[in-house]
Amino acid sequence: MFSRIDHIGVAVQELEPALELYGGSMQLTVAHREVVAEQGVEAVLLDVGENHVELLAPLSEDTPVGRFLAKQGPGLHHVAYQVTDIVATLEALGQAGMRMIDEQPRTGIRGSLVAFIHPRSTGGVLTEIVQPAEVH
Amino acid sequence: MFSRIDHIGVAVQELEPALELYGGSMQLTVAHREVVAEQGVEAVLLDVGENHVELLAPLSEDTPVGRFLAKQGPGLHHVAYQVTDIVATLEALGQAGMRMIDEQPRTGIRGSLVAFIHPRSTGGVLTEIVQPAEVH
Repeated sequence: MFSRIDHIGVAVQELEPALELYGGSMQLTVAHREVVAEQGVEAVLLDVGENHVELLAPLSEDTPVGRFLAKQGPGLHHVAYQVTDIVATLEALGQAGMRMIDEQPRTGIRGSLVAFIHPRSTGGVLTEIVQPAEVH
Repeated sequence: MFSRIDHIGVAVQELEPALELYGGSMQLTVAHREVVAEQGVEAVLLDVGENHVELLAPLSEDTPVGRFLAKQGPGLHHVAYQVTDIVATLEALGQAGMRMIDEQPRTGIRGSLVAFIHPRSTGGVLTEIVQPAEVH
């Protein structure tokens, strides 16, 4: 069902110091930068082989990532698994009794299709599934 | 420096319900199960392509994962990046000014060599580097 870890999402207060860390000290290559207004973030993707680190800076305090930062500070925010058919995966997860935040796929970063599973169904781990743009 | 995301570590109270979730509903294949006494956990690795999910159940409350669970509940605990030469990577990270929990590699799950970077150097993300056994 899941072909790889697509990315880990990391909540940060400001992108620039995080880019110095991940792009500088850890020597990852920046692949993409985008304001995803629907999710209330400015996001940067860095390559780690075929996986990515997604840095997430909130556009305001009153956004999901803004509230996450206020509650528990910067750190690991979510994990995303890559799939080839997000509609079929959503159906399979639903049949397995998992509760979804998104019943239907929506557009994510870089033209991907994404959906989030509710942390109550995943032992506290905010979990995203991603069908990359090149697949759909 | 990092060739891929080796695994995400997920803190759980009990392994069996987590295995029902990851091995059952999410259809991941269990690759390995091991008590890592030095880290105070029983761990299970599940395959996600060439990446893994590492489920971590504490051997007692007075362990790093036990304290993590008491403080913030189950969820994402750490991320691990795969490297081919952990000694050279530790040296490069140190030269970049990063603070390590482990100055020298130690033995991790499945005979790997591992070291943790301090979350103060990584924006709150507990970060591990892993040289798999087949590489050393």
